[in-house]
Amino acid sequence: MSRMSVAVSGATGYAGGEVLRLLSSHPELHVTTACGHSSAGDRLAVHQPHLLAYGDMIVKPSTAEVLAGHDVVVLALPHGASGEIAAALAETSRETLIIDLAADHRLISPAAWEAFYGSDHPGTWTYGLPEMLLADGTKQREQLRSTRRIAVPGCNVTAVTLGLGPLLQAGLIEPTGLNAVLANGVSGAGKALKPHLTAAEILGNASPYGVAGTHRHVPEIEQNLNLALGADPAEGPVRISFTPTLIPVSRGILATLSAVPAGGAQLTREAVAEVYAAAYADEPFVHMLAEGTWPQLSATTGSNTAHLQVGIDERAGRIVTVVALDNLVRGTAGQALQSAHLALGLPEATGLPTGGLAP
Amino acid sequence: MSRMSVAVSGATGYAGGEVLRLLSSHPELHVTTACGHSSAGDRLAVHQPHLLAYGDMIVKPSTAEVLAGHDVVVLALPHGASGEIAAALAETSRETLIIDLAADHRLISPAAWEAFYGSDHPGTWTYGLPEMLLADGTKQREQLRSTRRIAVPGCNVTAVTLGLGPLLQAGLIEPTGLNAVLANGVSGAGKALKPHLTAAEILGNASPYGVAGTHRHVPEIEQNLNLALGADPAEGPVRISFTPTLIPVSRGILATLSAVPAGGAQLTREAVAEVYAAAYADEPFVHMLAEGTWPQLSATTGSNTAHLQVGIDERAGRIVTVVALDNLVRGTAGQALQSAHLALGLPEATGLPTGGLAP
Amino acid sequence: MSRMSVAVSGATGYAGGEVLRLLSSHPELHVTTACGHSSAGDRLAVHQPHLLAYGDMIVKPSTAEVLAGHDVVVLALPHGASGEIAAALAETSRETLIIDLAADHRLISPAAWEAFYGSDHPGTWTYGLPEMLLADGTKQREQLRSTRRIAVPGCNVTAVTLGLGPLLQAGLIEPTGLNAVLANGVSGAGKALKPHLTAAEILGNASPYGVAGTHRHVPEIEQNLNLALGADPAEGPVRISFTPTLIPVSRGILATLSAVPAGGAQLTREAVAEVYAAAYADEPFVHMLAEGTWPQLSATTGSNTAHLQVGIDERAGRIVTVVALDNLVRGTAGQALQSAHLALGLPEATGLPTGGLAP
Amino acid sequence: MSRMSVAVSGATGYAGGEVLRLLSSHPELHVTTACGHSSAGDRLAVHQPHLLAYGDMIVKPSTAEVLAGHDVVVLALPHGASGEIAAALAETSRETLIIDLAADHRLISPAAWEAFYGSDHPGTWTYGLPEMLLADGTKQREQLRSTRRIAVPGCNVTAVTLGLGPLLQAGLIEPTGLNAVLANGVSGAGKALKPHLTAAEILGNASPYGVAGTHRHVPEIEQNLNLALGADPAEGPVRISFTPTLIPVSRGILATLSAVPAGGAQLTREAVAEVYAAAYADEPFVHMLAEGTWPQLSATTGSNTAHLQVGIDERAGRIVTVVALDNLVRGTAGQALQSAHLALGLPEATGLPTGGLAP
Repeated sequence: MSRMSVAVSGATGYAGGEVLRLLSSHPELHVTTACGHSSAGDRLAVHQPHLLAYGDMIVKPSTAEVLAGHDVVVLALPHGASGEIAAALAETSRETLIIDLAADHRLISPAAWEAFYGSDHPGTWTYGLPEMLLADGTKQREQLRSTRRIAVPGCNVTAVTLGLGPLLQAGLIEPTGLNAVLANGVSGAGKALKPHLTAAEILGNASPYGVAGTHRHVPEIEQNLNLALGADPAEGPVRISFTPTLIPVSRGILATLSAVPAGGAQLTREAVAEVYAAAYADEPFVHMLAEGTWPQLSATTGSNTAHLQVGIDERAGRIVTVVALDNLVRGTAGQALQSAHLALGLPEATGLPTGGLAP
Repeated sequence: MSRMSVAVSGATGYAGGEVLRLLSSHPELHVTTACGHSSAGDRLAVHQPHLLAYGDMIVKPSTAEVLAGHDVVVLALPHGASGEIAAALAETSRETLIIDLAADHRLISPAAWEAFYGSDHPGTWTYGLPEMLLADGTKQREQLRSTRRIAVPGCNVTAVTLGLGPLLQAGLIEPTGLNAVLANGVSGAGKALKPHLTAAEILGNASPYGVAGTHRHVPEIEQNLNLALGADPAEGPVRISFTPTLIPVSRGILATLSAVPAGGAQLTREAVAEVYAAAYADEPFVHMLAEGTWPQLSATTGSNTAHLQVGIDERAGRIVTVVALDNLVRGTAGQALQSAHLALGLPEATGLPTGGLAP
Repeated sequence: MSRMSVAVSGATGYAGGEVLRLLSSHPELHVTTACGHSSAGDRLAVHQPHLLAYGDMIVKPSTAEVLAGHDVVVLALPHGASGEIAAALAETSRETLIIDLAADHRLISPAAWEAFYGSDHPGTWTYGLPEMLLADGTKQREQLRSTRRIAVPGCNVTAVTLGLGPLLQAGLIEPTGLNAVLANGVSGAGKALKPHLTAAEILGNASPYGVAGTHRHVPEIEQNLNLALGADPAEGPVRISFTPTLIPVSRGILATLSAVPAGGAQLTREAVAEVYAAAYADEPFVHMLAEGTWPQLSATTGSNTAHLQVGIDERAGRIVTVVALDNLVRGTAGQALQSAHLALGLPEATGLPTGGLAP
Repeated sequence: MSRMSVAVSGATGYAGGEVLRLLSSHPELHVTTACGHSSAGDRLAVHQPHLLAYGDMIVKPSTAEVLAGHDVVVLALPHGASGEIAAALAETSRETLIIDLAADHRLISPAAWEAFYGSDHPGTWTYGLPEMLLADGTKQREQLRSTRRIAVPGCNVTAVTLGLGPLLQAGLIEPTGLNAVLANGVSGAGKALKPHLTAAEILGNASPYGVAGTHRHVPEIEQNLNLALGADPAEGPVRISFTPTLIPVSRGILATLSAVPAGGAQLTREAVAEVYAAAYADEPFVHMLAEGTWPQLSATTGSNTAHLQVGIDERAGRIVTVVALDNLVRGTAGQALQSAHLALGLPEATGLPTGGLAP
């Protein structure tokens, strides 16, 4: 049987490159087309020198015509750019599995989209986070089995959702008073040239951004956590203080999450760990660490696995959960493929690494 | 007039080295003795190749005999080691200004010391954080003018105290529900060899430590914040969730702090900024950034200045303050000298840099 | 057919960990035993948190008894430690494929060994660098097909040998006047605690070591290059100035090599590139970049591929070759497995990645 | 007596910022004007958040009118941009000391300029490297005492000139066969946005540039070394293979230099070290390390001091010299001021730090 064909738009960027990397040894999916904009006509090696398998592939223009006719299309474009091309593909590629790595099709609420992105809402696709717990105890995985359109969550959102969702769904924590501070690798900001992302500005430095509720990921986080409660995605009770900070690493997100026990209850670590175990014990890509060890970025580098640990701060009255993951794999390309496998009827874990690259 | 003599114990470590660096061009204080343990007998250049002014100085053994007879003695020793030598110096050096950079003499409550350090309480010295606001509106500075014994706070504690103290003292925030997540440069852990601090483990990595209320700095933070309220240092109402995380930078602390407005009030950024301005506008070493810009480590490197910014997250109901500082200067050696100047009757800012080294 | 069993001694270190990482998805080789010293009895997850597949494996003591009875034994031990255990295995494990990642069995000349290592020469095993060109135009690969004992070259040596060997074998360059300056990732020094390898010492720093002919890798480099000429490995004409420098990256070697054209000839880049093409065009793990692009570490991270480019400096009269590779894969664990495959009759490239992990 | 006024053009860049940093506590020179291009009208704090002393200064447009009327003008502009503004200043500011940090006025040979920069030669100013040895045994310092126009050498050139100049001037080494490989901090490339200088591309990476005689610094290096021999700056005998490599540090240059002993002589380290001592023993800003220790970047960070060590590789027949310096201080702003002091009749070392900032 011939393998399925994949076209990647945005193949010269970091997210697109990571899709290519993961597909380079995939048994069922085969990249036949790589698209870009200003890079069209270049050998892919010019932009992705690490992807030897694709070095001689010529970058094609990222148009609906070029993308049409594949079994799978991956859109790894800047936020706001995938809506248009997705619309153009709608007619010719009804049966094509289209996967959007940008934010365009993640939000359910048009009002939330417009408030944070300032443009018309491009619509809502099936959300690509298979392990996400829903209020009824099922997981998002089930929604993905029958879709042709997947909106893959961002890396920050993935870390916070995996970390707090089970506690909310189990009623262990209050939906308000949530706190998330993240240490973020710079690749999460993409390849575009920005003054604060040059190496001279990042080395020896750390800095916050999108502070005090201004970051575009806030409504997406609250949507996921409200869904865990069975509440309205935009109008539900969840409130989170969310602060990402840039640190001098290339990849990775370390999320430090704190929450107030529901009703001010005194919880044991065991009780909380059991809730996580119930949610994730059978999940190959969410790993609860042994008690006493805490997640670290390097253990997740290059892998599709999120690492997680929890502690109880009795004095402060807080549950503290730490999540580490690779923003380009678990936070983007890896869970895109994991979700695609579900939609395509392939084994969910096909070709996805659980182990990391360290040191 | 001859300059005053200084002896530095622990001169081959990072904190001791930073004291030497700052004193190398000091107009009034003159390092005449540098002490170490296993390094005794070595040229100082072997251990501190950047300190050209002291390269040929020979490291002496760190004993009370060697340290006696100086105008100022700086103890830059591991936690738990300075109590003993301070006791040995007590008789011979009653008039000597002794500055302890370790934790030994910081805590007021013997019970808190014993709970977190597991040894007998070595006593309490005058706390070396001049800008710390007390409940009566005075600052810690006044206590330092007449002391001969100074306990310099640690870097984490300094960042959190400067960031949250004024808001508590002004009654703007609740004393519970405080949250602090810090990105920490590795020099804060000192020069001792530890497996998790090798470069191969730190590069490309980030990891939390002392999570969920277990870090030894928690009682010191709560002490300072309780004092801002006029409450008992150990039994007062302050509760903080505190998580430091190691990141691959050598120096610096970036503290992301959140707090609940008192009584759930809706506060404006202007109102909060005014409280900070009232506390710090005249302080050369605490710098409130212009609205819209946020602190970053590199702007503080090598300087004695803490940078600070605040935002209001109305939706989440939180005040978010970010503080950046250099852990070895503002968090250790710089404020040690700043405090020493007060005790010695010198201008407080003598020889201390306000500007940073960047990029 | 059952897969072959592998025991790894030194499984808690970086080289041993990398062997495990590469074997975690290997179709033919199966790690059944992981050994360590002080770590014996620990779960492997304590030491290698990124290797999820092996997290629950218990570290066994690294003794000849434990290592006996496997199809393959990998010795990832400090230099000088593998000779003894190899001797102990000699009787019980005559048919076992033993692979030594340390220097012990690499040198042909006992005198060279003794001069640089100061101990008795442990003997010489088949050298594990399949692409190494020999004077007769064959490659080292042929020697590996029938051996049960493999000595894997170090990372520095691999980079220099791959870069200069073909030019010497083709008679294009003088055997003297060779110059190699390397930028080295810190993982090459292993996991042992050393003061100059802490993160605080490495971040923002670069420093040379083993300067001016004192590095232990010099005799091994000269041995390989002499063999390319058909000369005596220790007494042949090759002379190289070799300087490694530590830089703040975890993995990787960037070797900048210069050589004098033989007889002072004016060479074109094309002529030199053709020599490299003749040597490597069919090699999956040595990649000549397109003209105008130069090797960089990140393109090789995690892969078994060395990247190579060459330029002619007509004015200075030098051929300049730059080689980049991942010291733990191409420079250690990857070529160990590549060599093992030859000895075991498996396809040489089995399970070895050609593409890198970037950014 | 009033201090002298200084205008800095390019004040928002790295080199200009470093001039400001060093002048912030200068006893005789006072920055009264900071100029930029697109930044004109901004508070300087927006671009240089670490320079607290100048944060409220408003950036002025970088025109001849604005720059006129100061005692000192520093041009910290991209290569090729300072020629024009210098010409415009020529009439109005004959007595003004103008210091060019770019390459425009460094080369003596118009042909060399045109070959490497492709534009008309803007002329030759007094070269700003006070310790540079000339063939007659004098130093460049003497030329600087009576000039009003100074061309400050670049960082790579400074490192190589300080390292090899004395050996050539003393006749110890051959003028051909020189080899220089440099590890370079990213700030040397300035603040302009370039795809290969983003943090995601630099972290975990190292890469060469300007390989095989193509780098613009080659003619300047050869000029300086020819002058040490008394030869024609462009047509003299010096030939050097020069390869800079980008590494993930913000500041610093580590130059590994090798040379062939003149006439193939067997030299001792002592003999070579004596030549260096004769050249530099009285120089506050060139520091020969004690035998057995080698230069490292971090020891020089923030200081105006170059560190130097030498070894003899008898087997390879090479003298190996390693030089470390801070590219923004010793390689740019620091030696600009050092040179300016000579021209202005101030003590040469005024306000320039000899010690570094580490870790």
